[in-house]
Amino acid sequence: MRFHDCSTAPSPRRVRIFMAEKGISLPTVQVDLKSGEHLEPAFRRLNPWCTVPVLELDDGTCISEAMAVCRFLEEIHPDPPLMGRDAREKGLVAMWEHRCEIDGFLAAAEALRNATPRMKGRALPGPEPYEQIPALAERGRKRVQGFFKALDQRLADSAFLAGDTYTVADITAQVAVDFAGWIKLTIPEALVHARRWHDSVSARPSAGA
Amino acid sequence: MRFHDCSTAPSPRRVRIFMAEKGISLPTVQVDLKSGEHLEPAFRRLNPWCTVPVLELDDGTCISEAMAVCRFLEEIHPDPPLMGRDAREKGLVAMWEHRCEIDGFLAAAEALRNATPRMKGRALPGPEPYEQIPALAERGRKRVQGFFKALDQRLADSAFLAGDTYTVADITAQVAVDFAGWIKLTIPEALVHARRWHDSVSARPSAGA
Repeated sequence: MRFHDCSTAPSPRRVRIFMAEKGISLPTVQVDLKSGEHLEPAFRRLNPWCTVPVLELDDGTCISEAMAVCRFLEEIHPDPPLMGRDAREKGLVAMWEHRCEIDGFLAAAEALRNATPRMKGRALPGPEPYEQIPALAERGRKRVQGFFKALDQRLADSAFLAGDTYTVADITAQVAVDFAGWIKLTIPEALVHARRWHDSVSARPSAGA
Repeated sequence: MRFHDCSTAPSPRRVRIFMAEKGISLPTVQVDLKSGEHLEPAFRRLNPWCTVPVLELDDGTCISEAMAVCRFLEEIHPDPPLMGRDAREKGLVAMWEHRCEIDGFLAAAEALRNATPRMKGRALPGPEPYEQIPALAERGRKRVQGFFKALDQRLADSAFLAGDTYTVADITAQVAVDFAGWIKLTIPEALVHARRWHDSVSARPSAGA
């Protein structure tokens, strides 16, 4: 198995943290997003959507999309469980993970990609060029601020997003919060529950991944 | 258990089809999205994101987000498996499902919500009002057309999206294609593989869900 990564990119970081929590170490190939290596034919054969991460299995099968890679790894390396232990918890983890991806991760990406000069014509990941939409950058920033508040409300009642234990939902939320830092948005001081949680997940050894 | 649904909405339709394939029938509550019932306090207590579907468990736990509801149901009612049978297939199903959601389902939603007069101020689902962005409606339409092509390329090599068997990835893609019909986008005649697949999934009894 080989893990196709880009050490500076937030999406594969979700999988890197997931692997660090499980103690999984894989041969890793760095994909140079800056030079556009992900848009070249060699990488496109692995992943037509031109995104990292990609997990290349020994039979040549390629699994892309961060959560799909995590799903595969959870199955072959179930301990510690990061996607829930029973049906109820699996549902709650999937629910929180998905909301944090949509409201946090994708909102931050929207804000960044629609405003950064070096991302002109790259407002969406993938092979097709998409022009920036300034109103979307603005909307993304507003959504990230709403995401911080939603985190705080949830974490007022719960140690972690899906319940008492750390799961992949916390990973997506953590990476989304750190990614929002790229556009200079941080959890406001007043949101003490979200800050407590962010300090806690950031203190785990996996946070360096 | 109670299923909070809206019989005309595409997102809960994903779960309705999933349940029909498994032969699951649940007490169902219809939520009137037209009158804004999903934005009222009673519904917000079930789901602060104000979206359907929601599965309310007997202990009061509420699971929202279509794929999270499917994940729960897959665990308590594993046959027939719709989210993959082994690690590799589970990874591939999650990968295709996620891409079809982002490129198909969300793109169609983007196109619809940013252009329809009755959705002014409702460009995103959820409790917060968001103004329409006309450029985003345009981009959504372009993305849906790319989604049709990507489906066709994949289905030239494979009976179903994740491989030889029908899975939840096909459900999300099917609902996305039908949802795109709301904005008058249909799979072009020339994309014979995507059309063959769509005819095939539409002929299943679950398609009426």
